[in-house]
This record gives sequence, C-alpha cells and structure tokens, in this order.
Amino acid sequence: MSEQPRNIGEALESVEGFWQPHRLVSINDYDVKVVRIHGEFVWHTHPDTDELFLVRSGCLTIQLRDHDVELGPEDVYVVPAGVEHCPKAEGEVEALLFEPKGTVNTGDAGGAMTSPLREL
Amino acid sequence: MSEQPRNIGEALESVEGFWQPHRLVSINDYDVKVVRIHGEFVWHTHPDTDELFLVRSGCLTIQLRDHDVELGPEDVYVVPAGVEHCPKAEGEVEALLFEPKGTVNTGDAGGAMTSPLREL
Repeated sequence: MSEQPRNIGEALESVEGFWQPHRLVSINDYDVKVVRIHGEFVWHTHPDTDELFLVRSGCLTIQLRDHDVELGPEDVYVVPAGVEHCPKAEGEVEALLFEPKGTVNTGDAGGAMTSPLREL
Repeated sequence: MSEQPRNIGEALESVEGFWQPHRLVSINDYDVKVVRIHGEFVWHTHPDTDELFLVRSGCLTIQLRDHDVELGPEDVYVVPAGVEHCPKAEGEVEALLFEPKGTVNTGDAGGAMTSPLREL
C-alpha cells in the first residue's frame, strides 16, 4: 500500500504530549515514529530489538548503566537489543524512532509511561 | 554490538560521489544509509522490500510510472515493494535511506549505477 509523503516538522507540530510516539510511516514490518521528549523516562530494555534514535532538535541524553550518550541535532544512535537505557532531556527534544512494529516504548519495564503507538 | 553516535551532516560531508549509499548505522537487519543525489537514476524495482527516502536537503522527485512524488527537506516517503521507480534531482539532494541489509541500490535493474554499500 502506497502512503503519502510525510513531513517530519509538520508531524511534530501536531504532537502535543511528551513520550508519546506517533507513527510517521511504515517500511515492511518497521515503524518510523516521531516523538517529543522532555524530562526523564524510565529505565527499560528491549530484549529482542535494537532501537534507533535520530534527534531533530534539542539535546538528548541516553543514559546507559555504564555511561551516558549525548545526542544533538542530526545525531543518530542505536541502543543495542538487551541493553538497559533511560532517555532524558532537560529541554525539549524532537526525535525520530525506528524500530519493529509492536515495539513498546517502555520495553520490559511497563508502568505509567507506557504509551500505545498513536497515529498522526 | 554498540556503535558510536553518528552525525548525519558530518557523514554527508565525507561522501564525495553521487548515488553511492554509505552506511550510517545499522539496526537489527536494516541499514540506515546517507546518499548524495544529483541527476537521474535508473528505473528499477525492489521486489521484496519497501524503500524509505528521507530528504535532508534539496528537492527530490521520485518518478513512479503513473505519477511523480515531490519531496523537500524533512519529507519522508516509502516506495512500496514491487513498485517501479526512478529518483531524479535537478539540484543536489542529501538523503537518508532505510532498507534491509543487502538491498542493492539499482534493485532488479543492475547496470553501471549499481553501487556496493560503502562504509563511512
């Protein structure tokens, strides 16, 4: 099924809440999502999949148990499967996520910050 | 295996040729590639996979057999598997590609513009 082109900036303008991934497009059995980030998330792991972060704006820290990874605009980082991590951002961050369909934002942790994938 | 963060702009600065995808990062069995585009490519199809284009700069036309798709900065478009297409750009375009590892740039067409995946 052919989808229409989507613009990342316009998509993010329509997203109001933080930590709520919205599906931008899909490719095969993967989703590309946009998300607005602020504050600290929860420590979690995706046991079965890597997770890609692409920062559009702002400064995002991916806390790992042994060090932090600092990301700015246009930085891309892949958290390997099985690696515990906790994103945080003192200011607002706009980011893209690329991961298999069905990947839950809180991974194995669950809890109040678990968000269903939203459509734009 | 954990990789270092990569910056999209820096990666593209190190790419000299057009139509030569370079691997930025990998996620599971997918590659994220950067590519510089200018001129017209070749008509081709990827029978077994969708192909995602994310334009960073410039104006990219994805010619399909029944219409053209026009993409500008921050536009994302997915060419469905099996759909014949031919990218072209009158000016220079910088773009990202998401696709499964092993996807060849010319798909089923082959020919002189076939490029091995390059490392940065």
